[in-house]
Amino acid sequence: VLELVEKASSLNFPLLFRFLGTICLLIGGSMAFSLPFAFPSVADRTHLPPATEFESAAASGLLASMAICFFVGAFFRFLGRGHRGGGELYQKEAMAIVGLSWVSATVLGALPYYLSGTMIAEGSPITFIEAMFESQSGFSTTGATVLTDLETPELVPHCILFWRSWTHFLGGLGIVVLFVAILGQGSAGKAMMRAEMPGPTKDGSMPRMQHTALVFAAIYVGLNMLLTFIYMFEGMSSFDALCHAFGTMATGGFSTYNRSLGGFDSPLIEYTTVLFMILAGTNFTLLYLMLLDIPRRPLTAARRLFQDVEFRTYALVIGVVTLGVVIFGLRAEDEGFGTLAKGVQNGLFQVVSVITTTGYGTADFDEWNNFGRGILLLLMFVGGCAGSTGGGMKVIRHVLFYKILRLEIERAHRPRVVRPLRVSGVAVDDPQLAHNILLYFCMVLAIFVMSWLALITFEPNSTWGVVMTDTPPEEVIEESAKAGKSGEEIVVVDHSQAGKKLLHGTLDEKLLDCASAVAATLNNIGPGLGVVGATRNYAGFSQGAKLLFVWLMMLGRVEIFSVLLLFVPSFWRRV
Amino acid sequence: VLELVEKASSLNFPLLFRFLGTICLLIGGSMAFSLPFAFPSVADRTHLPPATEFESAAASGLLASMAICFFVGAFFRFLGRGHRGGGELYQKEAMAIVGLSWVSATVLGALPYYLSGTMIAEGSPITFIEAMFESQSGFSTTGATVLTDLETPELVPHCILFWRSWTHFLGGLGIVVLFVAILGQGSAGKAMMRAEMPGPTKDGSMPRMQHTALVFAAIYVGLNMLLTFIYMFEGMSSFDALCHAFGTMATGGFSTYNRSLGGFDSPLIEYTTVLFMILAGTNFTLLYLMLLDIPRRPLTAARRLFQDVEFRTYALVIGVVTLGVVIFGLRAEDEGFGTLAKGVQNGLFQVVSVITTTGYGTADFDEWNNFGRGILLLLMFVGGCAGSTGGGMKVIRHVLFYKILRLEIERAHRPRVVRPLRVSGVAVDDPQLAHNILLYFCMVLAIFVMSWLALITFEPNSTWGVVMTDTPPEEVIEESAKAGKSGEEIVVVDHSQAGKKLLHGTLDEKLLDCASAVAATLNNIGPGLGVVGATRNYAGFSQGAKLLFVWLMMLGRVEIFSVLLLFVPSFWRRV
Ligand SMILES: [K+]
Ligand SMILES: [K+]
Repeated sequence: VLELVEKASSLNFPLLFRFLGTICLLIGGSMAFSLPFAFPSVADRTHLPPATEFESAAASGLLASMAICFFVGAFFRFLGRGHRGGGELYQKEAMAIVGLSWVSATVLGALPYYLSGTMIAEGSPITFIEAMFESQSGFSTTGATVLTDLETPELVPHCILFWRSWTHFLGGLGIVVLFVAILGQGSAGKAMMRAEMPGPTKDGSMPRMQHTALVFAAIYVGLNMLLTFIYMFEGMSSFDALCHAFGTMATGGFSTYNRSLGGFDSPLIEYTTVLFMILAGTNFTLLYLMLLDIPRRPLTAARRLFQDVEFRTYALVIGVVTLGVVIFGLRAEDEGFGTLAKGVQNGLFQVVSVITTTGYGTADFDEWNNFGRGILLLLMFVGGCAGSTGGGMKVIRHVLFYKILRLEIERAHRPRVVRPLRVSGVAVDDPQLAHNILLYFCMVLAIFVMSWLALITFEPNSTWGVVMTDTPPEEVIEESAKAGKSGEEIVVVDHSQAGKKLLHGTLDEKLLDCASAVAATLNNIGPGLGVVGATRNYAGFSQGAKLLFVWLMMLGRVEIFSVLLLFVPSFWRRV
Repeated sequence: VLELVEKASSLNFPLLFRFLGTICLLIGGSMAFSLPFAFPSVADRTHLPPATEFESAAASGLLASMAICFFVGAFFRFLGRGHRGGGELYQKEAMAIVGLSWVSATVLGALPYYLSGTMIAEGSPITFIEAMFESQSGFSTTGATVLTDLETPELVPHCILFWRSWTHFLGGLGIVVLFVAILGQGSAGKAMMRAEMPGPTKDGSMPRMQHTALVFAAIYVGLNMLLTFIYMFEGMSSFDALCHAFGTMATGGFSTYNRSLGGFDSPLIEYTTVLFMILAGTNFTLLYLMLLDIPRRPLTAARRLFQDVEFRTYALVIGVVTLGVVIFGLRAEDEGFGTLAKGVQNGLFQVVSVITTTGYGTADFDEWNNFGRGILLLLMFVGGCAGSTGGGMKVIRHVLFYKILRLEIERAHRPRVVRPLRVSGVAVDDPQLAHNILLYFCMVLAIFVMSWLALITFEPNSTWGVVMTDTPPEEVIEESAKAGKSGEEIVVVDHSQAGKKLLHGTLDEKLLDCASAVAATLNNIGPGLGVVGATRNYAGFSQGAKLLFVWLMMLGRVEIFSVLLLFVPSFWRRV
């Protein structure tokens, strides 16, 4: 027993390196899928002129990135050569692998941006930290971006635009879930699923875990394909359809247009996206059971869906919040709420986009009334259902949170009445569940508050809300004043230069904007309020803040614990 | 045993009524202390002309209030006549008594304002909800106010101004702690102390409880007297000195000047107040032990103070935050940060005022830079030490919260290493403590978020930020524009009327202002940011919002649980 304890509390490094090596090789290999889009004939655009010539600089950047991935992967596998396979994988190893996989993916995934000469704006080549931001944002399916102009291939080449959306696809599938499904590493799979599967899942035996992962992957790929075809049928080019299908099904939110999905101006495409965002935010196990039922017993299938307390709550929240947003939006005559039909379309789209943590934009909800802005900010913390590609805290955790608080209030005045926690009528037999849920909420709270404090302390005022723009400074000031956004200062710098830097700072809302930026990255939404609003991006933040966001997106995606542990020194030491 | 269970789960109503009756009689009796200040010779003011004639309307209002208190008290005691004393008091009864005492105190304490014809501004007599707000704010030592002008006795008579500060004195002492100390109700005392004593306290036997309550009361009254004399020595009139001593030692924050303590323009008075606010926010048991030590072993006394992990953290937070506020304030050249000396004076005062939850103002910290505003907003949730008169979440809970999260992170990667929670080097033997701390944070989070959501949903935009002012509307608009505060709208209404209503609405920051108003009432601070900033007040909110604030102040003061239970229907039923 003592030997077992010692074995468990120290790390099996060869195994770790072998895993990491394989991941690096797979990431490198998957970059090959982006290469074809360097050819002008493949990168067809819906609303933009097609490319005219082969993107040679970007293609060679991609090839160089692939070479680095293969080299690093081979080196890791060389370090892990002592491992002879089939070894036991403990909780601790699984956590280390999950955490380090994300770190490796982030760093390697940043290479194509960095080596292809991508520009965050005219005259501003991307820094490596910014490339890591974009890479992490892709893999974690956050969809926050530092790229100001997606519609100029000279700034962001087509093959890089595809790589960007492709990281959503890979992230949504979950690099490690993929591993479990394809490689099936004995008890590793179980431990990993526990670390990786979003939300609290019912524990199962190993073969069921592997089966679940396969089902997850199959449904996910199937829906991606289905949605691509639907988008093409609705008028998108194949390139745009692929990218947006990836963005929707991964609840990622990267688009290929500056106006996001609003760039298509198509209610049909928007309602299609709403439907598929809702599906992407639903527990995939539930979708699988539905798939089995629908052909034979459609009514049973629908009943099953609404018997699930999580889905019921998810649907209810979407309905109630949309109703509220539409009523307040119409009353305040907000942008996009001209008519009831338009209001429902925009309101429903934004509510679903935020609760599923997709983050697509069709209307600039930052210009909405305070109720709309406030409720969307809260909704960011709700998130999708457990076992979906959605981020955030997950609906089921909120359901449990509510039930736990209610039980505790009862317990305080009836200490002798012991009542178990029930989910969908079944008593939960895990005595640690209540504790873990409370702990999770407290962790999120602590991380949110600390990150917010760090941002308001260290983010300099002098570069707050920098926007790159072609508009002459006088017009910007005039427009801002008209919108009632005079703020503490509007300062113009560097307008003569190529970068066209313009300080568009409204420091008035810095506290709220920082809170929304933290919420939008920690919950893997993407856009937030103010300087990170739907029409703006994260380019204006300092490099340090961008690094903080990289960390928050990772924390949010792997459900906080696994990543947090990597930064505890004692994690790496023997006891 | 069965009988005991049944007895415990049903309420002993005669006992309840007898208690409540006594409380009503005591509140009525204590109103007599305000009566003398209706005489012009007693109500001397430092910076204002003394009153010239007897405040007959206010005095008769006070007398009427006293009559109502006696009548209600007698009625409750009549209902409770079946109780023959000495009965056992269970946890549930204690909670009901604590909660209902606060409700009774709030309602009865509102009578003097309402019946004396107090005006919240010229032409606007106080409503009963507003009177309850002022009363609750006094008893809960919050110090939030709806009274716009304290310096005109025709609007707020002197004897009402004294009653207002006197409720701070009563609240600070704790109506129920007073009960424990004076009446000593057998096991009642123990159960009550558990509900009433702010923060987690070490459990003791009954006689020690009673002793603690007496010590608490003695130190409190002693410090109030000492501070009154010091204030008088520093130039305050006896009336102002009494009122401000009550405001300081109760960490209440009601002043008798519109500019709060800043109205004295005296660094000496400000530094004296800083010292006594720090004392008021310190655990009174610690103060008692210090008192015993200082005459003989002053060094031991100082060492004891800093051996206490809570006091050490409290001092450290004050020091570090003050340093940050001063640096950022000087850099941004904020109001009140002209010189280093002035900056330290204003920075230290505001930091101490907020962390101790006193809420006095000398500088308008709402005009500070974003770091200053943000850190003060966070500080509102820290609060004083357990066993002090300070509100908020208490320093010790934050210390425990940090330790618990650290232990949990360790536990996640070393599940086999069990390490106990330690406070000041001693292992905590309460297995429920960690759970209770996490639960408390989650409760505060849930109440904060729900209240914020309610405010942004139901508080109408059309009356947001109403300010009563004598300034002509053109000047207000001009000033606002100069301060960069154009906001979404500045609308003027009713300026011709006596009320001089002026909409001074900057809806831009409604989300943040609402958050700060909830934080400032739930944590019993008083002033917040924006529309409830240091130079403004709660008068502009709708009556519904004021009722919400009354409830939040009560929740904050009796540490959430006791009050929450009153509103659970099953609490009142037999099982
Ligand atoms: K997203
Ligand atoms: K206060």
